[in-house]
Amino acid sequence: MPISIAFYGERGAYTEEAAMATFGKSARYIPERYISDVFDAVENGAEYGVVPIENSIEGPVTQTYDQLSDFKLHISGEIILRISHCLITNPGTRLPEIRKVYSLQQALGQCKEYLQKMRVETIPYFDTAGSVKMLKESRIPGAAAIASSRAAKIYGMKVLARGIETNKRNYTRFFIVSKTEPKDRGNKTSIVFTLKSLPGSLFNALDAFAKNRVNLTYIQSRPVLGQPWTYSFYVDFDGDKGDKRVASALKDLKKATNSVKVLGSYKRAEGWLK
Amino acid sequence: MPISIAFYGERGAYTEEAAMATFGKSARYIPERYISDVFDAVENGAEYGVVPIENSIEGPVTQTYDQLSDFKLHISGEIILRISHCLITNPGTRLPEIRKVYSLQQALGQCKEYLQKMRVETIPYFDTAGSVKMLKESRIPGAAAIASSRAAKIYGMKVLARGIETNKRNYTRFFIVSKTEPKDRGNKTSIVFTLKSLPGSLFNALDAFAKNRVNLTYIQSRPVLGQPWTYSFYVDFDGDKGDKRVASALKDLKKATNSVKVLGSYKRAEGWLK
Repeated sequence: MPISIAFYGERGAYTEEAAMATFGKSARYIPERYISDVFDAVENGAEYGVVPIENSIEGPVTQTYDQLSDFKLHISGEIILRISHCLITNPGTRLPEIRKVYSLQQALGQCKEYLQKMRVETIPYFDTAGSVKMLKESRIPGAAAIASSRAAKIYGMKVLARGIETNKRNYTRFFIVSKTEPKDRGNKTSIVFTLKSLPGSLFNALDAFAKNRVNLTYIQSRPVLGQPWTYSFYVDFDGDKGDKRVASALKDLKKATNSVKVLGSYKRAEGWLK
Repeated sequence: MPISIAFYGERGAYTEEAAMATFGKSARYIPERYISDVFDAVENGAEYGVVPIENSIEGPVTQTYDQLSDFKLHISGEIILRISHCLITNPGTRLPEIRKVYSLQQALGQCKEYLQKMRVETIPYFDTAGSVKMLKESRIPGAAAIASSRAAKIYGMKVLARGIETNKRNYTRFFIVSKTEPKDRGNKTSIVFTLKSLPGSLFNALDAFAKNRVNLTYIQSRPVLGQPWTYSFYVDFDGDKGDKRVASALKDLKKATNSVKVLGSYKRAEGWLK
């Protein structure tokens, strides 16, 4: 039986592209409308889930971070994909007829300059490829969607323009999540911690890494629900959680904070796809 | 002549409410559709601008952070407002008829549990009060908006339900921006810095605060455009930029980083409005 991979978005989504490049053609791919549904699918039987975690222009995907706070799974891998957007419409529609453009809020943001020149109304939609599918089914006149050329192909739609993103250095980083931990040793670890409510508590937490010479590569804060102005800190650093220096840093971090959770150790994405 | 205050959103927006509670009834209030327009308005003559910076549930307002990176103004104050959402529709529409709900993405997120029970479609709109105005003008059947009771009153619309937010500890923090610095000394400062690309560079930057005993109250990272996986760090801390310890910390920080910009020193919001 093929392994099942749940991914965020409709068929043709960038997340599906990242997943397919990793797990190959023989796996079974399950589209999910919400990021939380990907996590549910993995808890309920899918072998892996693939979700976006960060875009190099728009920043963190906060819905993914918020899922990690009650996380029962493991981050078991990382994928980076180069993002290049197309303006897509129904066959027969021409560029000057376009009045409205649908897509994921982040994709609209990434094509802001192009869209401002077009002088069109922008309408947020739950997914890039999903907006292409919706246009195909609804045939809304004078409307286009922003998604990958792959999405246009899958739905038999027409590409009006390619590479319409403002900044070409546009990459999305994805996490692979699973119920079981990867067997191989990783070279990168992600954790989340919450602070003690003391002055200098953030500094004391980060000191745990510095004194064990563990190199932080990313830090992101998210609000704690129901506790205004308190935060969870998501941190990525070099090394496997089994490494001596990392283990020592985690031990020191536990003393300096209220809570620490290791989300996973995995292999850092080297370079990017496409 | 009354002073002019540009604010984000339509008439009836939460940001207008925060602005009015601060600047009173005699000021002239200018609604702006985009956060960037508020900054433009202040650069082009409005005395003050008011923009949301952070919500206690949804986290940072990234469009505001991204404006601060090219910031030519000063943060001259902070306001905190308690947010309580209403479900609002045209007079004559009843609750069981509602099939679609329009509002700002963040407001829809804050009312997720209530909306899931209603089993309605949610449609993101550029502003809370703006979605009420749009429903009044378009009279879309079976549609409601999420906004403040004040917005319902302003547009003569009907409140179907009050306090529909999932978590009642829902606050938004706003920044007041201006061309001139406030004359009074502040007790809080906001800055942005970028790191040298060295291992341990984040730690070295934060060490500048620790060794001068300056207490950090908030840290937020945002991607640097065109430089994937490099970040600007937005930091709030206690004290005025003229304080001896703060000045010394800023001096040390400049040595440890690539760039430092002081966004403003201002009076911390004590408590909240409403």
